[in-house]
Amino acid sequence: MRNQDPAQLIAGVRGGDRLRLAQAITWVENEHPRAVELLAALYPCGGGSHIIGVTGAPGSGKSTLVTALARAIRAAGQTVAIVAIDPTSPFTGGAILGDRVRMRALSGDPGVFIRSMATRGSLGGLSKTTGGVITVLDAAGFDRILVETVGVGQAEVEIASTAHTTVVVEAPGLGDEIQAIKAGILEIADLLVVNKADRPGADKTVQALAMMLELDGTHARPRRHHGRLVPDSQAATGTPAHAGQGESRDDARWRVEVLKTVASTEEGVETLRQRIEAHRDWLLETGEWTAREHLRAAHAVEALLRAELERRIRAQWAALDVRALVEAVAQRRQDPYHAAQRLLAGH
Amino acid sequence: MRNQDPAQLIAGVRGGDRLRLAQAITWVENEHPRAVELLAALYPCGGGSHIIGVTGAPGSGKSTLVTALARAIRAAGQTVAIVAIDPTSPFTGGAILGDRVRMRALSGDPGVFIRSMATRGSLGGLSKTTGGVITVLDAAGFDRILVETVGVGQAEVEIASTAHTTVVVEAPGLGDEIQAIKAGILEIADLLVVNKADRPGADKTVQALAMMLELDGTHARPRRHHGRLVPDSQAATGTPAHAGQGESRDDARWRVEVLKTVASTEEGVETLRQRIEAHRDWLLETGEWTAREHLRAAHAVEALLRAELERRIRAQWAALDVRALVEAVAQRRQDPYHAAQRLLAGH
Repeated sequence: MRNQDPAQLIAGVRGGDRLRLAQAITWVENEHPRAVELLAALYPCGGGSHIIGVTGAPGSGKSTLVTALARAIRAAGQTVAIVAIDPTSPFTGGAILGDRVRMRALSGDPGVFIRSMATRGSLGGLSKTTGGVITVLDAAGFDRILVETVGVGQAEVEIASTAHTTVVVEAPGLGDEIQAIKAGILEIADLLVVNKADRPGADKTVQALAMMLELDGTHARPRRHHGRLVPDSQAATGTPAHAGQGESRDDARWRVEVLKTVASTEEGVETLRQRIEAHRDWLLETGEWTAREHLRAAHAVEALLRAELERRIRAQWAALDVRALVEAVAQRRQDPYHAAQRLLAGH
Repeated sequence: MRNQDPAQLIAGVRGGDRLRLAQAITWVENEHPRAVELLAALYPCGGGSHIIGVTGAPGSGKSTLVTALARAIRAAGQTVAIVAIDPTSPFTGGAILGDRVRMRALSGDPGVFIRSMATRGSLGGLSKTTGGVITVLDAAGFDRILVETVGVGQAEVEIASTAHTTVVVEAPGLGDEIQAIKAGILEIADLLVVNKADRPGADKTVQALAMMLELDGTHARPRRHHGRLVPDSQAATGTPAHAGQGESRDDARWRVEVLKTVASTEEGVETLRQRIEAHRDWLLETGEWTAREHLRAAHAVEALLRAELERRIRAQWAALDVRALVEAVAQRRQDPYHAAQRLLAGH
């Protein structure tokens, strides 16, 4: 397996060979010298998977929910891949919690593929590597791909740019600060789930979310592209099939719902699966699927551009002697603003 | 006030004029065209403030703790500024929770200055704007500057590169996922605080953290620079005063402690303040202060470089027609890897 070439991996991924699929993903994660070649070849084979982002605050139980959802997807006769992204430790990596539990619940089923990834706290890590892993799984022909992230800060924005359907998971009584986070999360959610719904306060949380949706009024708005290099006007060229007439028609819009689940007992999980399918149908019927494919493409290109620019800048910098300038700034003989300008000017 | 020039603001900031101080910070936040001029002039006046980062998971009660700590600092006869960074909503901004409570507890005291900032989920936002705000407050002569961030993902790494002393706040029983986050947080903490220590499970959390510190063994290690452009070897030129002899001596190392507080009753807060002062003394005695000033300078220069490069790239991109390429990628006629290469090559 060590001296695989991309052609063998491509054939393996396309042909359902699990060992080669795992190895292809490892190439992507480790930035193997030939990973780009592999991904470029696999990309055209993709486009068939429905990519579902599941994001939520720590403690919302989203790992358990993702596991239960995968079982429901399998029960409905579809294949499913799970990508769990763990941004916990930027330094040590850090193990994925609940991973062993998940493995046990789904093990032995050839229609399920699970991969956990540590991003080491890097955002670039999320967009760059996750995009590649999704490309591989998409080419491998999984019907559904579940991408699980801890939804705090930037991660939930990233996932919304990567997924067709974004599920935001909450739990009752996670405190005021979490409540505030919701304000941002509402704008990316296609479906809201209050998990651990058997706990006290669940109905209150559902009501609060429903009220926020009502007040917000943005939940039915077409999704924006949140990247920075590629402007909205250029990225969102996927015009809905019924544009012009549909713009103000309520039935052409997706109404975000608040669902209740108890992932540990699988209560409400099949309903969640069905609502995800309903969202998929809506995407396809309204032409919004095409629009999201454009956003996903724009996001992918931008992430790659950033990574390449970063690499070039770093290479350029290695040649300069930054030390003296940083020392001058530390001793306040030079301010950082002029120091940065001098470095940019090549001294 | 509208047509201020930088000279007036500089004089105001240096002279203790609160209105001009607030306006200078607004210039920084809004990226006023003359903000860089202002900051470059203020930077050499700084260096006197002890910058204390306070980071912790949502629900740890760090806002209340920061307020209590500010009161303790005032009681000890020092002036204090609070910068509260709110990354909650990347889209809508979002109000800082507990802000009104804080204002009430500290209002009317001319030795306290409070500023809340929404970063809209952007990391660049944290490093770029916060650095500038700290430059202004430092030049204004505050003895202590408390920088409060939600410590999930990247934010805690950023704060460790910006502060002299980093306090990581935990609370009992925040669930397993939070526990995992600690693994990364341990490496940036100079002091660990278990807040809400009157709650069940506090001692268990203290013991767990103490054990993790013991196992980790990295807590006494000199801090690394977590930026990417400026390599460690170039950034950390601030050699400790007793280098050579101190390297392996245990007493030259800072031992991270786990403290208990109940911020709402101010229990343990004065002890925390004293331990922060002890850390400051340690920094100054060992020469580690100088090393951290170097890291802070390297971080500041790097953040500015990134921002400027981002601006240049965006300007360059605006000229290109990205639309056709993104459409080709969305329709899988082109893969994103070759699309990015073509864009980089200028077509």
